[in-house]
Amino acid sequence: MLASSGNAWLERKSEFMRRMVEDIEVGYLDWRVKRLLDAINSRPKSYTTSSCSGRVCIIDAIKPWERKESSVVFKKHDPISSSELLRVLSTKPKHSYWLIVGGPILHVMCQDLEEVKFILDCARRAGFKHSGITSVSDKGFLVELISSTQLILPLTRGERVLLNLKEIEEVIALVNETLFDGWKRIDMLEKIIQSQEGEGA
Amino acid sequence: MLASSGNAWLERKSEFMRRMVEDIEVGYLDWRVKRLLDAINSRPKSYTTSSCSGRVCIIDAIKPWERKESSVVFKKHDPISSSELLRVLSTKPKHSYWLIVGGPILHVMCQDLEEVKFILDCARRAGFKHSGITSVSDKGFLVELISSTQLILPLTRGERVLLNLKEIEEVIALVNETLFDGWKRIDMLEKIIQSQEGEGA
Repeated sequence: MLASSGNAWLERKSEFMRRMVEDIEVGYLDWRVKRLLDAINSRPKSYTTSSCSGRVCIIDAIKPWERKESSVVFKKHDPISSSELLRVLSTKPKHSYWLIVGGPILHVMCQDLEEVKFILDCARRAGFKHSGITSVSDKGFLVELISSTQLILPLTRGERVLLNLKEIEEVIALVNETLFDGWKRIDMLEKIIQSQEGEGA
Repeated sequence: MLASSGNAWLERKSEFMRRMVEDIEVGYLDWRVKRLLDAINSRPKSYTTSSCSGRVCIIDAIKPWERKESSVVFKKHDPISSSELLRVLSTKPKHSYWLIVGGPILHVMCQDLEEVKFILDCARRAGFKHSGITSVSDKGFLVELISSTQLILPLTRGERVLLNLKEIEEVIALVNETLFDGWKRIDMLEKIIQSQEGEGA
């Protein structure tokens, strides 16, 4: 029932693996998740469809959960500096500025529920809470893995700055540590999957 | 396969409904989600196992995603005031203070995948993103619905205050609006489920 059958599964997995190789060639793939993706893709009943190692965004929005009229004004997958933050704050937002640090996120297609359980069990042990199956189709079970290493930090309300700018270096340190904590969880998840190789497969 | 069968399903659903009535009697159930829970529980193939309409917490922690040595110093399911926030900030944290506004969260047991799809589709339309199946057993499919109306806001780093206290009323307004936005999504989800009653059942 609903589990994806042999040939079609292999064809779709090959297609996603081909796309990943292309992404590596053009430098599009986030190298920090590469070893984790390899660990997952070495399992016959799983393949990864997308991934992000985490990122820092500043958006101009009424609220971060309201897409309407929201725009990204800064985005980086690496640590940021106070001058980058101050540069944004020196301009006027249309609505308000929000600093969002997103944790690592991965999407994994699993061939059956036994494999889903293995992946989710590993993910939760590595701190990827709130992970779960987000859709089920004849392609398989699509599992989303999200780490809780994140910040949702209002920088301004309109033009009023809500941050204590005297402590901007402390805020920057915190933002960057949030990224680093996400990277640690990527490595932890890779090690947990590797150490259990063969189990549940 | 794995779908929960008739009698056992009905017995477990009745047990959860009995617990919910008890929770209402002792004032434990969060009244803001009551109509939504009724809408879900009126569907033969779903029952709710737990729920929260959203809340404001202040925790003393190294990082909010590290449970170790973290403790809750303030918790409220209603709007907060600046004096409540200042009272916490007048004390020294062991680590750092974090203000967390959690959005509404619900857990729904579904009897089969068709019902899961219905619930997830309604949930996503009401802004409960990142919702998904978190576990599968002979009891059914456990679906977690989470709204993205949340804040993860570092108040201090050690004893250094990261907020601009001159704008504390703006921060409080934002915290309370985050709660209200969550309540709106609860009402929206109830209306969406009610309007499609019978579909997918």
